[in-house]
Amino acid sequence: MDIKAVNSMSYEEFIDLFGNAVEKCPLIAGAIWSKRPFTTFVDLETSIFEFIDSLPQTGKEGILRCLPDLAGRELQSGTLSAESQKEQVQAGLTSLSHEEQEKLHQFNSLYKNKLGFPFVIAARMSDKSKILQDLTARIQNPPLQELYNGIEEVKKICHLRLQDIHCKHAVRPTNP
Amino acid sequence: MDIKAVNSMSYEEFIDLFGNAVEKCPLIAGAIWSKRPFTTFVDLETSIFEFIDSLPQTGKEGILRCLPDLAGRELQSGTLSAESQKEQVQAGLTSLSHEEQEKLHQFNSLYKNKLGFPFVIAARMSDKSKILQDLTARIQNPPLQELYNGIEEVKKICHLRLQDIHCKHAVRPTNP
Repeated sequence: MDIKAVNSMSYEEFIDLFGNAVEKCPLIAGAIWSKRPFTTFVDLETSIFEFIDSLPQTGKEGILRCLPDLAGRELQSGTLSAESQKEQVQAGLTSLSHEEQEKLHQFNSLYKNKLGFPFVIAARMSDKSKILQDLTARIQNPPLQELYNGIEEVKKICHLRLQDIHCKHAVRPTNP
Repeated sequence: MDIKAVNSMSYEEFIDLFGNAVEKCPLIAGAIWSKRPFTTFVDLETSIFEFIDSLPQTGKEGILRCLPDLAGRELQSGTLSAESQKEQVQAGLTSLSHEEQEKLHQFNSLYKNKLGFPFVIAARMSDKSKILQDLTARIQNPPLQELYNGIEEVKKICHLRLQDIHCKHAVRPTNP
């Protein structure tokens, strides 16, 4: 997809396409539409990250609270967003043993009770054993450090989702 | 519903209940969960309004862009949120004459082209003739004034949605 095509979109078209780049936060795509024209996809991504960074601490916590648990209730009930579903499948979270499932559930609950937001990790850049390892390590961190870590993971997830959009809508070269 | 019950909710329960108090912006309910305990429902509402006011101009524009057109594509396709559907029905927007429908569509488009966000009005506090009247008047305003007007309407809509939640979950007195 050409950035010129993105720049010519109405805000409705833009939110339809980029509204879930940050999970369940179409407000963010709606906000950065004001920053058009973007010079590149990287410029668009930078606008999203700058907007996130500009939010007060509660706003960043609000973003994290819009994310689903890994292998949690939305995965069980089939109500994950298409993007989250793909990410959790790729990380192997739909093929956990009963023991792994129990451990993840237990540590997710401990993490949320301690920190007041879910454990967030870019699942596609990880796998189930690394996720469990990171969760048990990061749960030791103080809240502000985990807020920072969680938001950095949101940005990684956003980066991969933008790449998907870019590639999916790429104009394929026609045969000569 | 007692405010104590609200204060004892997990962030998931809180977002399930209040996540659409501002249309398609669960980030906001997620953010103000950090402000618990609330002393009253009014205190909760004030926290939402303060959060909205704390956003940069682009963030406020982002909120407006998450709202559907009145009698627009989502109403036609049946994809409005339950809350928006109720509001548009109550304002008589499902029983427009062909002429009214055309006029609303035309002025909505003009408004969006001029201002870059949709015309927002608390439909339940209005009716179809007043909506058309306000739309044709407000389209004359400069962008910053309409951003302010739109956000004030978002707050009125939010106020009514919170009232609905409060009343729907009110504990009814048992018979003696």
